Amino acid sequence: MAKELKELTSREENYSQWYNDLVIKAGLAESSAVRGCMVIKPYGYAIWEKMRDALDAMFKETGHQNAYFPLFIPKSFFSREADHVEGFAKECAVVTHYRLKNNPDGDGVVVDPDAKLEEELIVRPTSETIIWNTYKNWIQSYRDLPILCNQWANVVRWEMRTRLFLRTAEFLWQEGHTAHETSEEAQEEALRMINVYKTFAEDYMGVPVVVGHKSPNERFAGALDTLTIEALMQDGKALQSGTSHFLGQNFAKAFDVKYVNREGKLEYVWATSWGVSTRLMGALIMAHSDNNGLVLPPKLAPIQVVMVPIYKGAEELAAVTAKMDEIAAGLKAKGISVKVDARDNVRSGFKFAEYELKGVPVRVAMGPRDMANGTVEIMRRDTLVKETVSQEGLVELIEGMLEDIQKAIFQKALDFRNSMITPVDTWEDFVKVLDEKGGFVSAHWDGTTDTEVAIKEATKATIRCIPLDVVDEDGVCIYSGKPSKRRVLFARSY
Amino acid sequence: MAKELKELTSREENYSQWYNDLVIKAGLAESSAVRGCMVIKPYGYAIWEKMRDALDAMFKETGHQNAYFPLFIPKSFFSREADHVEGFAKECAVVTHYRLKNNPDGDGVVVDPDAKLEEELIVRPTSETIIWNTYKNWIQSYRDLPILCNQWANVVRWEMRTRLFLRTAEFLWQEGHTAHETSEEAQEEALRMINVYKTFAEDYMGVPVVVGHKSPNERFAGALDTLTIEALMQDGKALQSGTSHFLGQNFAKAFDVKYVNREGKLEYVWATSWGVSTRLMGALIMAHSDNNGLVLPPKLAPIQVVMVPIYKGAEELAAVTAKMDEIAAGLKAKGISVKVDARDNVRSGFKFAEYELKGVPVRVAMGPRDMANGTVEIMRRDTLVKETVSQEGLVELIEGMLEDIQKAIFQKALDFRNSMITPVDTWEDFVKVLDEKGGFVSAHWDGTTDTEVAIKEATKATIRCIPLDVVDEDGVCIYSGKPSKRRVLFARSY
Repeated sequence: MAKELKELTSREENYSQWYNDLVIKAGLAESSAVRGCMVIKPYGYAIWEKMRDALDAMFKETGHQNAYFPLFIPKSFFSREADHVEGFAKECAVVTHYRLKNNPDGDGVVVDPDAKLEEELIVRPTSETIIWNTYKNWIQSYRDLPILCNQWANVVRWEMRTRLFLRTAEFLWQEGHTAHETSEEAQEEALRMINVYKTFAEDYMGVPVVVGHKSPNERFAGALDTLTIEALMQDGKALQSGTSHFLGQNFAKAFDVKYVNREGKLEYVWATSWGVSTRLMGALIMAHSDNNGLVLPPKLAPIQVVMVPIYKGAEELAAVTAKMDEIAAGLKAKGISVKVDARDNVRSGFKFAEYELKGVPVRVAMGPRDMANGTVEIMRRDTLVKETVSQEGLVELIEGMLEDIQKAIFQKALDFRNSMITPVDTWEDFVKVLDEKGGFVSAHWDGTTDTEVAIKEATKATIRCIPLDVVDEDGVCIYSGKPSKRRVLFARSY
Repeated sequence: MAKELKELTSREENYSQWYNDLVIKAGLAESSAVRGCMVIKPYGYAIWEKMRDALDAMFKETGHQNAYFPLFIPKSFFSREADHVEGFAKECAVVTHYRLKNNPDGDGVVVDPDAKLEEELIVRPTSETIIWNTYKNWIQSYRDLPILCNQWANVVRWEMRTRLFLRTAEFLWQEGHTAHETSEEAQEEALRMINVYKTFAEDYMGVPVVVGHKSPNERFAGALDTLTIEALMQDGKALQSGTSHFLGQNFAKAFDVKYVNREGKLEYVWATSWGVSTRLMGALIMAHSDNNGLVLPPKLAPIQVVMVPIYKGAEELAAVTAKMDEIAAGLKAKGISVKVDARDNVRSGFKFAEYELKGVPVRVAMGPRDMANGTVEIMRRDTLVKETVSQEGLVELIEGMLEDIQKAIFQKALDFRNSMITPVDTWEDFVKVLDEKGGFVSAHWDGTTDTEVAIKEATKATIRCIPLDVVDEDGVCIYSGKPSKRRVLFARSY
């Protein structure tokens, strides 16, 4: 067994270390010389590219266009929206100077004190302010609406405790920013986009999510409503995977963006914003992977099928590889990405372990006996089940197997998630379930921020969301005993 | 004629103003609230996306993978490569603090003096330093080589005089960074990539380029050789459109990146880097456009065909639009992007002007008479020639026309460029050609930086490149009269 695999910590031993090992050993990302900033390595970036392309196509299908807005935001812009500055301007990277000069006292370079900016620039933590300052010039009349823009960009939030993909100072994301004539239209847009995220998470990532509203306390800074998709990781902790905000007229008012409506009257514009980030990579890794390494859904796997020759000597290698190339051509013709690994300097056992670590969905091995029998050995990464099958019809078999794997990964995660939503009605049970079982706890809450904060302080659990499909039901709050109209989902989270 | 068009300054009147008007009125980009930073608007970004996708496919075909490295670079990294710090660390955005706080003396937020970074961070102007610091951990043996990485990213250079796309403080680009066993392999890579750029410029953008070496004085800071593609704009000025650098072992030495070679000895790694940026948008716009607006090559046009109904009343509009939708479906089936503009609140003349301004390659108009006759009116944007043709075989006709336009745009630019390479043998002619004709001047140069600088001071012309295909020929330097072995290309430039 390969050296790398032996060094992968098991989930049972230390889930957090298992995750970190996996990210590094599978070649997805690593820490950089800059505190809190990661390097996304080629294999990790290839997965992110597939996520980005799929999302981008979904955004375009729903009428959105891409644009690009500045990296920097003048400091004063943050002060215009009161909640927003509290939420974002505090922990951020601040550009104060625009020049270095040779160190007059020695080696190297120093900041040139003569090159101080009149107003400091903030490296964007999110772009509502600079974008609404721009929209002011784009919008005069209802004819200019809606504006449906998205940008793919890097953003910076000065996080103190960082973890690869899950929480980094710099991360990659997309942020949609839309402008509308009416409150209703903006709310419909916010709902449309959280559903796009849900479809993406479930159909591409194979990660089931609960869609719901954030409690007022957990809303985006400046939003009237925040919708979220919440996923559940294998350790029973929730992961907020995407959010979509109804911003009301807050940013329009902060940046004085008015339009002449159909009645000829000036009115403030209505807004949404929505985003997902490289944090999704963390969700993808943690939702499916096992102690052998990554388990990738076929739709997002950079390599869907790997073929490993089993051989003794150059002659057998050449013969097996030639046959594999022939099969690979058939797979490529079907749009399946395939790699034939004919490296002669590592053993096939090493290759097997490497592709398990990297989560390649299907592995095909073939040796001289298979050649003689017209068979191959095929293995599914998700179940690790091996079988010997005929070379005849192999392309179709693999095509079907990839579809099966995509479905099976989702179903497994869904079954687990569903088994981890526990309704409780007493504080004692609430604490017990959180401590002993984990997952989502469905409980009554009195609707106040005070109670929410008290529960968080007592248990580290937060309200993940008020599910969209919640059924109204009279009850009493598990903490305060006050009346409640519906259950909400609590969990400990990333 | 539309209001926008009337306001477009003509090239003859003021070329520079024409360019700026065009970028803004065609909806490509605009200045932002942040000095020197632009907003790339949806139509401009859609063109950039097409450029990016085509280049990205070419990079992958030549074996490269994408990755992502941090936005920030520790200040000390710049001091490690002596030339590099001179070239880049001087005019840059410097992050000195990581927090804001409420202003104790009044409104708004101020930089928190307690949150000063121990070491300042530079917003990347280019990423050689942070990447080679990373490669140090990736490379031990020749088996780890080559590394062929590219990243798509934003970079910041604190330019004092900025122009939309051509020179902005923040711009988008790709930067390839490769690591090799031998000098020869690295030099081959640098040449391979400049040829990828040439192919892209000519086949996609329709912009002919001269490939050559930069003079030592014009090399990238830290390179042993810089290859460039040089394009010629309609005003006779050159535009450096892409560069590829052979970096020798400079960055490997600066960041101590060694590998065990095939003989078992430790050796420094050899490097290249290469990049193109949103500056290409400026080249694309200036190379082909006219006083009516943009002229886009079909391969990069977000909309390749626009269809405008001519009608009186809702009934005619519905009938014509129905027929157009049918034709549009046929075009889409061939992979041609098409827009049917059935807006009822603007006149068709306005639409015609708008799509000319936006450079849509083919316009199809159809009215009730065309409906009766089974014809359409079709116009090519590049020549503005209109003709009435049968609806039968229209899809094939348009398909062929798009190919023709792609070729014709390139041929026109090539003929112009070739007519603007003027060999001169005297200083008097050199100055005269620069002042009266412009374009590239092919002249003998003695090979010294002193002469190059003196010529620049006297004429504002620089050596654009020493073309790869230059023929050795004895001569005398037009400025110093000293012996010269070959001609080089001079020009005034952007």
